Amino acid sequence: MSGTGRGEQIALEDLAPGQRRSFGPRVLTREEIIAFARDWDPQPFHLDEEAAARSPFGGLIASGWQTAALCMRLVVDGLLAGSTSMGSPGLDELRWLKPVRPGDAITVELTILEVTPSRSKPDRGTARISYVCTNQKGETVMTMIARSMFLRRGAAAR
Amino acid sequence: MSGTGRGEQIALEDLAPGQRRSFGPRVLTREEIIAFARDWDPQPFHLDEEAAARSPFGGLIASGWQTAALCMRLVVDGLLAGSTSMGSPGLDELRWLKPVRPGDAITVELTILEVTPSRSKPDRGTARISYVCTNQKGETVMTMIARSMFLRRGAAAR
Repeated sequence: MSGTGRGEQIALEDLAPGQRRSFGPRVLTREEIIAFARDWDPQPFHLDEEAAARSPFGGLIASGWQTAALCMRLVVDGLLAGSTSMGSPGLDELRWLKPVRPGDAITVELTILEVTPSRSKPDRGTARISYVCTNQKGETVMTMIARSMFLRRGAAAR
Repeated sequence: MSGTGRGEQIALEDLAPGQRRSFGPRVLTREEIIAFARDWDPQPFHLDEEAAARSPFGGLIASGWQTAALCMRLVVDGLLAGSTSMGSPGLDELRWLKPVRPGDAITVELTILEVTPSRSKPDRGTARISYVCTNQKGETVMTMIARSMFLRRGAAAR
């Protein structure tokens, strides 16, 4: 999973099932958790430390959407920004397995599961990718299987 | 899908398959799209209007994670904030079907598909819910099927 030349983008033909990459860790702060919750998911256990302490979670936890967004950021910085990525048609399974709390350091490991050339558009194809996000204790906090679209090298250079 | 008394929270026993609710619209601005991209998904077509204009998308589009977060915000404000919601174990199918562009007004319709009491914890259960997000032209931009956990009324009042 690397481009063929110096500074070259990773394209569809560089991806193959079984390839793995790991990115992170990145720490999620209390301030980031509260700011994200205020904008997008203002449930008390994501937003308000006192209410969160009284909740079954026993303290502030990140919105699951923020954990997904953090995973995305790690993968953009580590892989997609240097690739022919054209976005995603969607994902098949996302599981939030453990709460993410202030100060947790999140790492993501991705594994390429399948690479499928497009039937209708010969300049591109789709990779099916597994993502596993873990915290600093090695506990899995989130998993997902998503598809990403990538151009072939020639199409990207056009 | 309403509480039994004035000001009462919506609890597990208020949910039944076939119930539908609609929330929104909310407009997503250019500034919000760029701010979210900068934090969580800095791919050129989410972040940079000139690069986006040259991309196959022909202009700036929102990160799919922001569309999901916006859907979440509409559902928190419209339903979950007044409920015994305890978060989500995950989701099964998320599809990004059309780009969301600056100025698009997004509406979400949810449909309760199944309500399953927990086997191990009698004070709670899970609802399987379909979400359909549409833009101001009536085009479906995103769909997903997610699970949400809710406490029963008695448990929530404890």
